[in-house]
Amino acid sequence: MRLLLLSNSTAPGRRYLEHAGEALAAALDGVRRLVFVPFALADHDGYTAQVAQALDSYGVHVTGAHEGDPIESLDAAQAVFVGGGNTFRLLRELYARELLAPIRHRAGRGTVYIGSSAGTNVACPSIRTTNDMPIVQPPSFEAAGLVPFQINPHYLDPIPGHMGETREERIEQFLEENDVPVLAMREGTWLTRVDSSLTLGGEPVGARLFRRGAAPEEIESGADLSPLLEIAGRYR
Amino acid sequence: MRLLLLSNSTAPGRRYLEHAGEALAAALDGVRRLVFVPFALADHDGYTAQVAQALDSYGVHVTGAHEGDPIESLDAAQAVFVGGGNTFRLLRELYARELLAPIRHRAGRGTVYIGSSAGTNVACPSIRTTNDMPIVQPPSFEAAGLVPFQINPHYLDPIPGHMGETREERIEQFLEENDVPVLAMREGTWLTRVDSSLTLGGEPVGARLFRRGAAPEEIESGADLSPLLEIAGRYR
Repeated sequence: MRLLLLSNSTAPGRRYLEHAGEALAAALDGVRRLVFVPFALADHDGYTAQVAQALDSYGVHVTGAHEGDPIESLDAAQAVFVGGGNTFRLLRELYARELLAPIRHRAGRGTVYIGSSAGTNVACPSIRTTNDMPIVQPPSFEAAGLVPFQINPHYLDPIPGHMGETREERIEQFLEENDVPVLAMREGTWLTRVDSSLTLGGEPVGARLFRRGAAPEEIESGADLSPLLEIAGRYR
Repeated sequence: MRLLLLSNSTAPGRRYLEHAGEALAAALDGVRRLVFVPFALADHDGYTAQVAQALDSYGVHVTGAHEGDPIESLDAAQAVFVGGGNTFRLLRELYARELLAPIRHRAGRGTVYIGSSAGTNVACPSIRTTNDMPIVQPPSFEAAGLVPFQINPHYLDPIPGHMGETREERIEQFLEENDVPVLAMREGTWLTRVDSSLTLGGEPVGARLFRRGAAPEEIESGADLSPLLEIAGRYR
C-alpha cells in the first residue's frame, strides 16, 4: 500500500501543492494516469482543472471522478488523489456514487492514494476528527480506513486570547468517546505509508499524538510511526 | 413559545452564565423547576451541579435529565435548559434517550427552552451549522426545530494571519448545499423568542445574517428578527 496524506494542500505564499513537491514526486513515481476526486468542493470541473495543471509537470494525466465512468478511470489509473474542502460533502458523494469501497479496494492492491485535508480525513477509519462543518449528512461517518488511527489535519496549537474550545480540547472530547489514537498534523506536514512503514514528513513543527489516558506526545518530522499501523481502535 | 438561545455560556472573566443574567432572569420569570440536559459533556453529575449552583439565586430547582424519569421531570418543570459542549454527543444522547421529541413538544406548548452553544444548535432544524467535531455519530442531524433557520454560535470574524478556512467560508459552503438562512451569533449575544417575536440581545457586536445569494448582513443587538420565523428553508 502506498499512501501520501497531506495535512493541507496550500502553504502561505506558495502555489497549490508546491510545499509538498518532493513528497508528491516520490508518490507519483511510475504514475501516468491519476483519478482526481473533487467532491469536497462544489465546482468539480474547476477543481479538477486546478489539479491537472498542478500535476502536469509530473507528467501525470488527470481525470475527474465526476467525469465518464469513474470505475473505468480508476482501473486505468495508477493513483487516486482525493482533494480537500468539506469532509461531509466529500464522504456523502463517495457513498452516493458508490466509490468509497472501490477506492479502498484499489488502495489495498497498490493504487497510490494521495489525500489532502478532507482527503486525508476520509483515509481514516472515520471522519470523526475532521474540523469541517457538517453541512450535509453522509449515511455514515465510516470512511476508507487506509490507516487504523485518526488524523486531525490543519492542527492548530491554542491561540492566546482566542475564546471557545481549542483543537486540543476537541480531540480530548473525541478520546472521551473513542479509544483510538489521533495524530494531529500541523500545517505543512504529511504522512507517507509504504506497506508496513509509516513516516511523518514536511515541516519540522511536526505533529502531536493524542491517546486516551496519556499526555499528548510531540512527533518530529522524519519520525517513524510504523507502530501506529498495528493499533486496534475502539469507536463508540 | 418562549426561547432563550445563547451563543455561549461563559464570557471572559465572568462566572458561568453571568454575562446573560438579565436575559436569564426574564426567561426564568415564573419558573420554579427546571430540567437541565447535560449530555453535551461527559460528566453529567458535575455539569448539573454547576448549573444548579448558577441558577440557585434565581430560585430555580434544577433536576438533571440523566436522573430518574426525565419525562416526569419535564412534566413537573416550567423550563428546560440544554447546556453546551459537543453538539454531536448531545444530539446522539437526545435520540438514544428518546428525549428530542418530548422536548420539542413541550417547548411548543409553553415550557421555556434555554440553550447555550450546543443547546442553541439543537434548537435549530438541524445541527449542520455547529462548530463542533463529529466525535460520535447521531442517527440524524435533524434537531428540535424550535426556529426555522440555522444558528452558528460563537461566530468568529476572520483572524488575520490565521491559515485554514474562516467561519464565513464554512457558512458559505453550508449555503452552497442548503437554502436556509444562518444567523451567525458572536460571543456574548443571544436570541429571545416569545411566540412570533424574535429579538437579538447581548453584546452590541451583534450577529451576521448569511443568506444564499446575498452579501452577509450585520445585525445589531436589539434588532427585531421576527421575520426570520416565517422562512421556509430547503436542506439538501
